[in-house]
Amino acid sequence: MTEGERLKTDGGQEYEREYADLGATTQNAMDIAETSMDIVRQFVPDETLGDRIRQKSVHSMGDIEFQHLIEFTGSDDLGDDEDAPVRAGARAVLEESTIVTDITMSKAGITGRGHDCEKRKAIGNGAELAKETGMTRTAASVLELDKQGVYDGSIAVVGNAPTAAFALADCIENGTRPAAVVATPVGFVKAEESRQRIREISEEFDVPAITNVGRRGGSGLAAALTNELIHVAKDVRTDELELELTADERGDQNGGHEDGEDA
Amino acid sequence: MTEGERLKTDGGQEYEREYADLGATTQNAMDIAETSMDIVRQFVPDETLGDRIRQKSVHSMGDIEFQHLIEFTGSDDLGDDEDAPVRAGARAVLEESTIVTDITMSKAGITGRGHDCEKRKAIGNGAELAKETGMTRTAASVLELDKQGVYDGSIAVVGNAPTAAFALADCIENGTRPAAVVATPVGFVKAEESRQRIREISEEFDVPAITNVGRRGGSGLAAALTNELIHVAKDVRTDELELELTADERGDQNGGHEDGEDA
Repeated sequence: MTEGERLKTDGGQEYEREYADLGATTQNAMDIAETSMDIVRQFVPDETLGDRIRQKSVHSMGDIEFQHLIEFTGSDDLGDDEDAPVRAGARAVLEESTIVTDITMSKAGITGRGHDCEKRKAIGNGAELAKETGMTRTAASVLELDKQGVYDGSIAVVGNAPTAAFALADCIENGTRPAAVVATPVGFVKAEESRQRIREISEEFDVPAITNVGRRGGSGLAAALTNELIHVAKDVRTDELELELTADERGDQNGGHEDGEDA
Repeated sequence: MTEGERLKTDGGQEYEREYADLGATTQNAMDIAETSMDIVRQFVPDETLGDRIRQKSVHSMGDIEFQHLIEFTGSDDLGDDEDAPVRAGARAVLEESTIVTDITMSKAGITGRGHDCEKRKAIGNGAELAKETGMTRTAASVLELDKQGVYDGSIAVVGNAPTAAFALADCIENGTRPAAVVATPVGFVKAEESRQRIREISEEFDVPAITNVGRRGGSGLAAALTNELIHVAKDVRTDELELELTADERGDQNGGHEDGEDA
């Protein structure tokens, strides 16, 4: 059963649970959110947790082809399948880990509802380091927060600054272990390179990460994907979703289910 | 002379003035911002004020083709050329008009440097109206702020919610006159339609507006374009730019200037 179908079946109260992360709390807003995600699901598969991230990327970017630009790297105890970073991120939400963003915009876009994680932003820290070294304020802020141990076990979100993603990769190389990374810096200078570096570090040190390829991305995308981790965690908490399945197992289950209905 | 060239000529202090709106205050950040805008300028014309908005859209979206999706509507005293909404927006910044965004993300992305405009967000207002009517919280918040007279003479920014753009259009139809509108809601349901409505209202009531066509957009884009209005205003304040020219006059001037240098 897709989420859209569940919505139609269960009626009013369900809407709020489903779409709180889209900011929808009134009937009109929920209708829009429902219609919008139904449109997205016509074009994006709905089998794995990775698919949910792809759906959210398409919804956030207003672009159906964006689903093909999402990458999943790193592994958890179940394996290195595409769902690993989604499982890891959802587990971290359930464990009330800190969500650390690079800048204010990414933080502002992450819902306050449906979770008990503290939301923090890096920017505003490390001003002296930035001044001394000439590095970007966001890079310095990441290094400063890392010194304070904030990134260990966190959901580390980089929506805007390539230099913050590079700094985060350096921290991981030096021993820091975020529970999961969401990195989608946008732009023409080092944005793609910074995400490539996150992917390499993710694979090397088994830190699960969700990134995109290409020049596009941004704080809105980073916030949306983080919100989907929160949404997945919420579905686990309400027993609507079993978290401990690989993408293959989930795909078989969902595929089988649909075949059963068709038969 | 392009901004990139001016940067190279004038050295250090100039950087901060030029790229404060990109959040760049350290040397490393300014190098990235400079390189990035230089790349953008290879692909986007650099003659009119409209071109500066196009450049900023490309920079913000990480997509060179996005320049072709930007629309300019409405007019000012000089005419209805593409620069009209940029001139109107820059004038409003110089007059320290209020900048009103729909949601927190758009507000968070608008620089606090280089201007004395108050930044406000609509969301958080009109909760009762939303509850009573079932309209979206952002739509209700726009109507509530409009009742308080906040939108008259303001720079009205809608980055996320189509329903906020529709509500803003209704307010304009009912007599409210923002100094300029920046509207770039993203998504599959009513986003494009809401911007189309803004364009029609903009033309009908001569309220200058910057919008995009298609499904893409978002809070990051809205903030970036608003930051470019602030940037243009800053250039006017520092006598680097004469504001009271039409796009044609500016194009002739810039074209002529370049020919002169080449000769």
